[in-house]
Order: sequence, then C-alpha cells, then structure tokens
Amino acid sequence: MTEFQPANPDFEARTRASFDRQKIMHLIGAEMTDVAPGYTAIALPFREDLTQQHGFFHAGATSTIADSAGGYAAFTLFPADASVLTAEFKINLLAPASGTRVIAEGRVIKPGRTLTTCDIEVHAEQADGSRKLIAKGLQTLARLGHRSDIAEAG
Amino acid sequence: MTEFQPANPDFEARTRASFDRQKIMHLIGAEMTDVAPGYTAIALPFREDLTQQHGFFHAGATSTIADSAGGYAAFTLFPADASVLTAEFKINLLAPASGTRVIAEGRVIKPGRTLTTCDIEVHAEQADGSRKLIAKGLQTLARLGHRSDIAEAG
Amino acid sequence: MTEFQPANPDFEARTRASFDRQKIMHLIGAEMTDVAPGYTAIALPFREDLTQQHGFFHAGATSTIADSAGGYAAFTLFPADASVLTAEFKINLLAPASGTRVIAEGRVIKPGRTLTTCDIEVHAEQADGSRKLIAKGLQTLARLGHRSDIAEAG
Amino acid sequence: MTEFQPANPDFEARTRASFDRQKIMHLIGAEMTDVAPGYTAIALPFREDLTQQHGFFHAGATSTIADSAGGYAAFTLFPADASVLTAEFKINLLAPASGTRVIAEGRVIKPGRTLTTCDIEVHAEQADGSRKLIAKGLQTLARLGHRSDIAEAG
Repeated sequence: MTEFQPANPDFEARTRASFDRQKIMHLIGAEMTDVAPGYTAIALPFREDLTQQHGFFHAGATSTIADSAGGYAAFTLFPADASVLTAEFKINLLAPASGTRVIAEGRVIKPGRTLTTCDIEVHAEQADGSRKLIAKGLQTLARLGHRSDIAEAG
Repeated sequence: MTEFQPANPDFEARTRASFDRQKIMHLIGAEMTDVAPGYTAIALPFREDLTQQHGFFHAGATSTIADSAGGYAAFTLFPADASVLTAEFKINLLAPASGTRVIAEGRVIKPGRTLTTCDIEVHAEQADGSRKLIAKGLQTLARLGHRSDIAEAG
Repeated sequence: MTEFQPANPDFEARTRASFDRQKIMHLIGAEMTDVAPGYTAIALPFREDLTQQHGFFHAGATSTIADSAGGYAAFTLFPADASVLTAEFKINLLAPASGTRVIAEGRVIKPGRTLTTCDIEVHAEQADGSRKLIAKGLQTLARLGHRSDIAEAG
Repeated sequence: MTEFQPANPDFEARTRASFDRQKIMHLIGAEMTDVAPGYTAIALPFREDLTQQHGFFHAGATSTIADSAGGYAAFTLFPADASVLTAEFKINLLAPASGTRVIAEGRVIKPGRTLTTCDIEVHAEQADGSRKLIAKGLQTLARLGHRSDIAEAG
C-alpha cells in the first residue's frame, strides 16, 4: 500500500481527541485501538445491550464503529484546521457479528483535497483470538477546511 | 406505490415483538412508531450520548435505526416462520443530523422470495415539527425460511 | 419535490451539448429525452449487441445511462464554468432489464457547492408502453469549478 | 486469501463460454484475460467511442466490465447447473479512467449458497505498462439454481 504523509505531525493526538468527543462511543463502549497515517482501528467488546433480535451485534453497532474507523483514517491525513464529514458509505454484511468483540479498520485508498475514499473491514474476534471477516465497506469523506473539530452544536 | 399483501395477517404484532427484542434499541432509546405492509418507521429522540464530535447525531445512530426500519419493512411481508437478515446497505448523508429527533422510514420497493430491496429515508425533526431529509439509502435483505425469529445466540 | 433554480439560464442547451460529446452514447444508441432543473432522462432502445448472456440488457448498459442521467441532473444546476464528475454510485437491480427500451431518470435530492446527491431510477418499457421499475440507485457527484466541460483528454 | 474449491471442475471453460455470450463485450471490445477459482479479470482497450465528455473512459464502460468481472468471479464457484445475477453493486471512482486500457478484477470475498459477495478493483494501464487504481467496488450476486446459463430471452 501507499505510504501516506500526514499533513499534521500531531495527527495521532488530534485523532484520538476527536474520537474521544464522540459521545456515542462511550455509550456503546468502543475504543480506538490503533492510529496510523491513513489508518485507524476501533474495537467494540460484546455486550447484550448492543444486540439485534437474534442475539448478535446489531448491524448498526457494527456500522457505527465502521463509519468512525473510516472517517478517522481520512482525518489522520488532514491539516490541523480541517474537519471530516461522511458523505456516504455502504457495507456488505458477510456473516453474523458474533464473538467477544468486533474490530473495524478504516484505510484510506484515495486521499484528496475535498474527497477521500476509504476501505472498511470489520472482523469478529472469538475467545481464542481468531478473527473472521464479517463486513466490508466503502466510504466517501468530505474535508471541511478552516473548521474547528471542536463541538459546534448540541 | 404498490399495495402489498402481507403473508402473515399478524404481521404488525410479530414485527413489533421482534423490534422489541433488539436490545440496542432500548440502549439508544429508539421507538417503532409505524408498521404497515412493506413499511415501518422508527424514531430516535436526541440525546447527547448519541452524538459525534460536532454534537450532531452520529451517523451510526442514524444508520442503526435506518437499517432496522428497512429490515422490518421487509419483515412485515414475510411468512410467520421466516426471519430477516441485512445483506448490505448504503446510505448518503445529506445534511447534519440535528434536531429534537430523527425518524427513519423503510419502504419495500421490490419484495422477493429470497431477496427484498428497500428504500430508506431519514428525516430530522425540529422543535416546531418541521422535517428535513438528512439521509437516503438502499438496502438488500435476505429472507431466511423456516427460521424462528426468537433469539438463537448470545 | 423541491423546485430548483438553475444557476445557468442556458442549462438545457449546455446539458444536451455535453451529453452529445459522450461518444459512448452514440455507440450504444442512447438518447437524452428530457432535461429539467435537477432532472434528466435518457432512453436506450433494445439492441442485441447490448445484452448479457441471458439476452437481457447488460447491467453495464443500464448503469451507463443511469450514471449519465444522474450526472447530468446535477449538471443542470451548475454554473456555466463548472464541470461534473461521478464520485461514486450504487445500484440495486430489481428485475431483468427486458423490453423495447430502458429509461434512466436522474433526480437531484441534495444540491451542493462541492457535492450533489442524486436518486436514480431505471424503468423497462414494453411494446404496449407499460413501464416497470428495474433498477434504483444513489449517486454522489463532484462539481469541478472553473473547468470547461469541453473535452480535455483523449 | 482463502483458496476456493470450484464445484465444477470445468469452471474455466464454462465461465469463458458464458462471457462470450455477453454480446455487449463484443460491442465494446472487452476481453476476459484471467479466470481462476473465485477470480476473473476483464480488459478493455481504449477506444474513442467509449468516452465521456472529457475524453476519458465513461464510468459506464468501466462499470460494465467491473460488473462482469465480479459476476463471473462468483460464477466460477457455482455448480454446472446454476446461473448468476447481479443483485446490486456500488463503485467509487477514484481517478479519471485514462490510459491504453482499463482492467477490472473481481474477487469473491464471501461465497454462499444463495448470495455471493465480491470485491471489485479497476486499474488503468498506461503505455509503459504501469497501473493505477481508478475504481473500487463491492457487489452482491444471486445464484439461480437449476437454471441453464444459455440465453433464455432476446
């Protein structure tokens, strides 16, 4: 894969701080485990209150961390005064999301001044540490220039 | 639009009971407001713990109710012994999800024996009752025959 | 639906002239039948050399006119010095594309300075004039400012 | 990646014969260059009559070979009496499709009895043989059992 040069040397701290401001991540118990240029990973441990009617992780829980993993993968490459917005995403759910946790990874496949495209993968991890691909997606992110990432609403 | 004939006369009670087993809906505070043949609507009142870094509803919260609204729209048309699974969905986020609540509507556009396709719309409602389209999507659902909808995992 | 105000009063002539420069439309025999603010329709009469292995229109033929119908729907709202580029699209194929012709319609659902989102529908028309929805999609278009639409490559 | 076991030992001849029945491929000049279990590649040499208004390959031309590359990747794993149908696909267009030819590759990421999911990549090749990723997509294929692949319409 391409090696990306982040525009902001402080990209990791900035990315983790923004993730920490996503209050929904606290609600569901998600954690950002990895941050690299053009890449982030977010893990979500299994909890019964995240399930759908069959007892698996709800696709919405999977999509929530998938969307943020891709969004922050793009964000790592942005200058310090830019913010990120998801324009669209699509996800194919390949297998039931069961296991001790699900891990979403976002990878930039095409960075851009206004639009960035990311590949998204979600794996389910079992108690023995084995992982299985359960979802794959693509995402288009918009970069908002000269816009603080600090909350402006709510 | 086409008028759909549900295969199961008891479709509404069955759909609401299944929705009620989606524990994540209790966690986020979502409510199924409408059920009709080939259609459901789910409302999610604003809460600070559902937000992303800018204080708006997280796209994952929006996607969670959007996915279920479409899935249950398909489910209303299924026979009593069938279950539903999202194969894939895609969503375009048209505007920030801000307001007193967001409402996701799923509509069957093509029912099928194995695959059903749904259209998804999400509106944000303001304090004055006005609504704005904030997301639009498409979804492919698989029908699992001879499979109870009662939880089989977790 | 929203009434759109085109930025360029000459939008129809400009849209038709650009469509006419899409050489692939001449190859497959497609015709732009309607142009309105935020809307275009493109028709493709059946020809055996547009088919897939079962004798129906190939999904690629359907997608070709669907992509242009949405792209030009966005283009109708652009200023005279802007050009359009498809960032992404997705399409659900609801039924085999058979009939005397297929008609793709693109409708702007959210115009924007940099990004425009379109809804896409494709109907198959039978010899008796009846129409059936065979595909539905969503598309994200990028607006390129200060860029002539006249061919710059090839 | 996973090694796939094709259900039909004669998968390559069967896949190439079906591709050969896609008359649109003859019209645009596409060639199936590679067939392996769960994988096919299709190349499309540049021709002016495949272009959009800026002189690049039209996204529809790119999508046509992308759809078939993924569809036939799934088809390689099917039993001899099954046929394939695209249920939906989505594609992100990362860069203008310019060069001497474009090559679409389809890869099965999740095979299934009724649904198969494929990853799609399209590269543009320059005169010096270098390649650049210009599009990435995901596709859901339906398997039709006990259905000849020989033309049944048209």
